[in-house]
Amino acid sequence: MEIDKLKVTTSLDKWIKLNVGGNLFMTSRETLLKDPNSMLARLISDSDLISDKDENGAYLIDRDGKYFSPVLNYLRHGKLILDNGLSAEGVLEEAEFYNITHLIALVKEHIQKRDLQTSVVDNK
Amino acid sequence: MEIDKLKVTTSLDKWIKLNVGGNLFMTSRETLLKDPNSMLARLISDSDLISDKDENGAYLIDRDGKYFSPVLNYLRHGKLILDNGLSAEGVLEEAEFYNITHLIALVKEHIQKRDLQTSVVDNK
Amino acid sequence: MEIDKLKVTTSLDKWIKLNVGGNLFMTSRETLLKDPNSMLARLISDSDLISDKDENGAYLIDRDGKYFSPVLNYLRHGKLILDNGLSAEGVLEEAEFYNITHLIALVKEHIQKRDLQTSVVDNK
Amino acid sequence: MEIDKLKVTTSLDKWIKLNVGGNLFMTSRETLLKDPNSMLARLISDSDLISDKDENGAYLIDRDGKYFSPVLNYLRHGKLILDNGLSAEGVLEEAEFYNITHLIALVKEHIQKRDLQTSVVDNK
Amino acid sequence: MEIDKLKVTTSLDKWIKLNVGGNLFMTSRETLLKDPNSMLARLISDSDLISDKDENGAYLIDRDGKYFSPVLNYLRHGKLILDNGLSAEGVLEEAEFYNITHLIALVKEHIQKRDLQTSVVDNK
Repeated sequence: MEIDKLKVTTSLDKWIKLNVGGNLFMTSRETLLKDPNSMLARLISDSDLISDKDENGAYLIDRDGKYFSPVLNYLRHGKLILDNGLSAEGVLEEAEFYNITHLIALVKEHIQKRDLQTSVVDNK
Repeated sequence: MEIDKLKVTTSLDKWIKLNVGGNLFMTSRETLLKDPNSMLARLISDSDLISDKDENGAYLIDRDGKYFSPVLNYLRHGKLILDNGLSAEGVLEEAEFYNITHLIALVKEHIQKRDLQTSVVDNK
Repeated sequence: MEIDKLKVTTSLDKWIKLNVGGNLFMTSRETLLKDPNSMLARLISDSDLISDKDENGAYLIDRDGKYFSPVLNYLRHGKLILDNGLSAEGVLEEAEFYNITHLIALVKEHIQKRDLQTSVVDNK
Repeated sequence: MEIDKLKVTTSLDKWIKLNVGGNLFMTSRETLLKDPNSMLARLISDSDLISDKDENGAYLIDRDGKYFSPVLNYLRHGKLILDNGLSAEGVLEEAEFYNITHLIALVKEHIQKRDLQTSVVDNK
Repeated sequence: MEIDKLKVTTSLDKWIKLNVGGNLFMTSRETLLKDPNSMLARLISDSDLISDKDENGAYLIDRDGKYFSPVLNYLRHGKLILDNGLSAEGVLEEAEFYNITHLIALVKEHIQKRDLQTSVVDNK
């Protein structure tokens, strides 16, 4: 019985709820710790940052959830995936806010390529 | 014990819920006070504007939440980020409604650039 | 005490919940009464139309909420704002259903301009 | 009193909740019965099809809610309305699944026109 | 009475809730078992994979729900349906994560065709 209780606690501990500007995200502790220098790793480590939680126990982050999706996905699988229509500048802003060095580089590279393509089309 | 209770109150006080036309947003008091002349700063200061709240304690605003996102993001980080497809005129309408002077200027500038580009393409 | 109670009732009376095909909208009674001949004004006046409500007290409307957004926004600020990608024909259908004469004219005008532009591009 | 109770039951009976792959839709019984041969009419008639419901009393359908919207709208007003970006093939798949003969024809016609236009542009 | 209870249990057993990064999906056990080698079939078989559930009994998956939609739809009807704007690379990433061999092939084929078309346009 003691062991079962422990198992449940451990299992729930693995999962983290985030309330990003009113949108709920659910992810694993492991994912958020991927980049130890990021603000997200610091948020859940609770040592040097006082973290607020909402009434459902989700960590509160005062940012837009829409641009947070590609940031979280990057931490999940290491790639930058951007849907058409989503502003890359919006994602860059978040990558910088969350301080994820490699993602910042990836988004900047993406913006450079995009602008190069556009200017080629314009000069035809 | 008294101190703990105070801490919880202070922490919850930092966070504000907004119900914009039925969409929930969560942000910090600090963000909403960024532009002291805006309707949002007045809304939460409670002195000269009688504010209604819904059953979850969120301030009620009779506007569309979709166009509110870029407005709130501007208050968060000071930049205008517009996804493709979202009507800039829709955001201008909200910037004027919320009375955020610098954002109004940013959106107008964005619209001018966009219309210039379109007319260049049309005249080729 | 009586006065306080009255104030709360009045304040809640100002706000109306709509359940449009499963999507929740929140707006003011004032907004819905903007066009007195519209089906929305009749819906909340309760005299000549028997209105159903869901379990949260929201008026039930058997239509798509996505195309309802521009209709409600028109009542809020008097302008037609359409995002890229959203079907103008879908909004026209709703403007006619809700019987908002001026909005019907605005959407038809928008469609005519759009079709004119497209045919110019096709004939180049 | 008996009459009032009856009225409430009748009113609630008019409205049907659907849980399409996790998305909630609310519509009238009348709308779902528009095409008597459709799977939706059979779903709520309860005679030849055993229907599952979720914990809120919504009929469970194991399909994607995004492509269900134009199907339900068709039953509401008899027209095919497709937003830009939404896959027409995705809607055709659902029209066939729900077995709505006239809608299947409308979507196929839409796809033919679209493909014709594209090939004209390609051959210029 | 015993039989009725059994029926309810069996009916609820047929339906599975998934919490994919905070988004709720509802589908049938049958759909998730379509590809027996997929991670989804293993998730609900509970034998070789320890599965976490959220407080509503939904299986927790640490991925983005937006790219999960076409994956689930593929299991429902066997076709690849992609909306405009949705990143095919994002869906490929998920098809590989969930280990659905035939879907991986379908998405790769789609990407090849798309890139071929783009390069033809560029070289005109």
